[in-house]
Amino acid sequence: MSESHDAFCGINRLATADDEFEVRLGALLAWEGVSSSGVQQRVESILNDVRTRGDAALVEATNRFDRVAVSSLAELTIPAERLAEAFAALPEDQREALAQAAERIRSYHQRQKPESWHYTESDGTVLGQQVVPLDRAGIYVPGGKAAYPSSVLMNAIPAHVAGVREIVMVVPMPDGVISELVLAAAHLAGVDRVFALGGAQAVAALAYGTETVPRVDKIVGPGNIYVATAKRAVFGQVGIDMIAGPSEILVVSDGETEVDWLAMDLFSQAEHDEDAQAILVSWDAAHLDAVEEAIERLLPTLERAEIVRESLARRGALIHCRDRREAVALINRIAPEHLELSVADPEAWLPEVRHAGAIFMGRYTAEALGDYCAGPNHVLPTSGTARFSSPLGVYDFQKRSSIIHCSAAGASTLGETASVLARGEALTAHARSAEYRIRK
Amino acid sequence: MSESHDAFCGINRLATADDEFEVRLGALLAWEGVSSSGVQQRVESILNDVRTRGDAALVEATNRFDRVAVSSLAELTIPAERLAEAFAALPEDQREALAQAAERIRSYHQRQKPESWHYTESDGTVLGQQVVPLDRAGIYVPGGKAAYPSSVLMNAIPAHVAGVREIVMVVPMPDGVISELVLAAAHLAGVDRVFALGGAQAVAALAYGTETVPRVDKIVGPGNIYVATAKRAVFGQVGIDMIAGPSEILVVSDGETEVDWLAMDLFSQAEHDEDAQAILVSWDAAHLDAVEEAIERLLPTLERAEIVRESLARRGALIHCRDRREAVALINRIAPEHLELSVADPEAWLPEVRHAGAIFMGRYTAEALGDYCAGPNHVLPTSGTARFSSPLGVYDFQKRSSIIHCSAAGASTLGETASVLARGEALTAHARSAEYRIRK
Repeated sequence: MSESHDAFCGINRLATADDEFEVRLGALLAWEGVSSSGVQQRVESILNDVRTRGDAALVEATNRFDRVAVSSLAELTIPAERLAEAFAALPEDQREALAQAAERIRSYHQRQKPESWHYTESDGTVLGQQVVPLDRAGIYVPGGKAAYPSSVLMNAIPAHVAGVREIVMVVPMPDGVISELVLAAAHLAGVDRVFALGGAQAVAALAYGTETVPRVDKIVGPGNIYVATAKRAVFGQVGIDMIAGPSEILVVSDGETEVDWLAMDLFSQAEHDEDAQAILVSWDAAHLDAVEEAIERLLPTLERAEIVRESLARRGALIHCRDRREAVALINRIAPEHLELSVADPEAWLPEVRHAGAIFMGRYTAEALGDYCAGPNHVLPTSGTARFSSPLGVYDFQKRSSIIHCSAAGASTLGETASVLARGEALTAHARSAEYRIRK
Repeated sequence: MSESHDAFCGINRLATADDEFEVRLGALLAWEGVSSSGVQQRVESILNDVRTRGDAALVEATNRFDRVAVSSLAELTIPAERLAEAFAALPEDQREALAQAAERIRSYHQRQKPESWHYTESDGTVLGQQVVPLDRAGIYVPGGKAAYPSSVLMNAIPAHVAGVREIVMVVPMPDGVISELVLAAAHLAGVDRVFALGGAQAVAALAYGTETVPRVDKIVGPGNIYVATAKRAVFGQVGIDMIAGPSEILVVSDGETEVDWLAMDLFSQAEHDEDAQAILVSWDAAHLDAVEEAIERLLPTLERAEIVRESLARRGALIHCRDRREAVALINRIAPEHLELSVADPEAWLPEVRHAGAIFMGRYTAEALGDYCAGPNHVLPTSGTARFSSPLGVYDFQKRSSIIHCSAAGASTLGETASVLARGEALTAHARSAEYRIRK
């Protein structure tokens, strides 16, 4: 690594053998999506306003924040025909690619559907769990520069496969501009209703309902700090998905993958925004030098070179580790959103990978394939939350009810046990309710 | 219903035919678990203190809030031998009842384990999902008057069945007092480590880790407003279960169940605390009168009569509806934590019940049986959150990673689609990363 390379791109170089490795890695990974108290207060005020004044508050907030001039929510309601038109008007290659992606996403998610189950005990008591879709799901889709049709597919199709009765989408229309691809994707994904709303006001409308916008049972989808703060505030009154941090990838290379491919895989993460994180780990130091050289060479050819440069300098890294064992430890320490195992025998690694949102196996599986059309969801846990969270899935749009049907004999046996335990907890009405069912 | 009855117990009487029914029902159901800004600030201050000062802050907060005088966290660490001793010292009937309950809970939850899955497409591409347990789970168990060994079983056993590597329990020891039954249950449920900590400081210790308390990946279990506020604040850094409101039951009776049984079932809910909610729905007005009479007659015989009286007067109700159809609509409107279908053919109702945490079927299945030992979890969604939440389960202690392994042929085909979509989103590094994998 020469000094001039550093000056050019400045991707961080770390080595597990360095004394300060843990401190430097910790600093690179640190991310806190904490809202300032100013943001908190503005969001609270918007939530209260929409809750109490409904449509009127939505119209005012939208005129103000999205710089439009509408007089009623009717003007912010996008009818189904408009979505169908947007789809029909797409260039043929885009229409076909979108339809193919939708079909593959649907096919994958259909295998993810949990089923109701029950079993009968020898005394006739039946136990089980009934799985039911949500009545209504709300999908937040960002507008402006991060308006991604693929996000519409990834959020709406699992809800549709789950059997959600009504899918409501909100997408802001800043300055009156809306993405035709986003509308087309909504048509394809089975979205039932669309409102041109964004920000905390859109979250409030979905959480509380207004005269025009129906209250939903769960809100999913990415958004800026106002959207994230609003989702956290309404959590409990309505379900929410995870609150997303910046997107990240961890690539592990055994040194045999084309360095240009690896550089481009890192770029594809880094081009999202300046906070995105792209890290490559290898035990082959010469290989890491070659990747750095490829980064320097290819970076100037990128459309989004400035974003990539800043992202790599701030949060990117090439990490030299001692061996495969250390690479596995790094995977589980970082718990990345995306993990690319660019190695000869990725299957052999799988049993040791405990924490990762999605695992891209082998040299051919670029993360970009998963972002769009491989089938699995691209909504994944970020910032280490893969330690306890899963990809968005059909299971996020269903919920379960326990089923307990005691036979007379079963109630009598269980009543004896429940009575002892309830009296141990000094809950004697519990005990007596159970004792009524004990056979004399 | 006579005037003197009202004066005595004062359970609310509603009828769907009344003009003001919707308003009265709405008022009865209303519950907002919102923390005051005073509570918020105190919790934030405790969280920051534990985060920055670790064990020392824990010791100070515990001495202050639990009125003890310890000098180090070692004194708040409860060793495994102490748990085993507590179990061995239980009266035989309690030891056996606890063991039977644990065995039934374990057996039910073992059927709930999601499995990893994958499938291979015709071009050799493999897609799937890998299911992995959490590394470490934290279980909050309230101390003092609401110290329930059954809660220890219900929270810890699903974690144990899931395969969680380490289960850490916190339980406050106010004035140095701790429940032997709680310690015994921890022994039985496979808890690995126990600390005598409570309140926001215990949540902080589990979320951030200290010198002595290990950081966990998810925190589950009920607690007071300080615990709930702290859990909401750390959500995202660590997983949490749902934030619980007061416990509730909705009983639907067809008029044929013994009225004393129904009265006691309502009491068993109401005796939890003054905010608990017990509601009975029937289309048989004379039956409702008879249940009210039974309530008046049996209430004075209860150990916790004062709590029950206040709970029934504030939040309880006997609701007269017109028919079975209206009863079903009320179930789905209320989305109760516990639903008792005290009717002749409960199976026939099941397809129409969309929202309920647990469904107790038939006249023999008292809710109390489910609270202790039927097998399903007693940690259930409250306050209408059964619209979008599930009972606590094995799935809460596992998470999933998507698996994508493209063959060379698969990557080529998918690369074409991804390239079109990525260019449609102006993410050209994504497109080029995919295009590298297209066969020339």
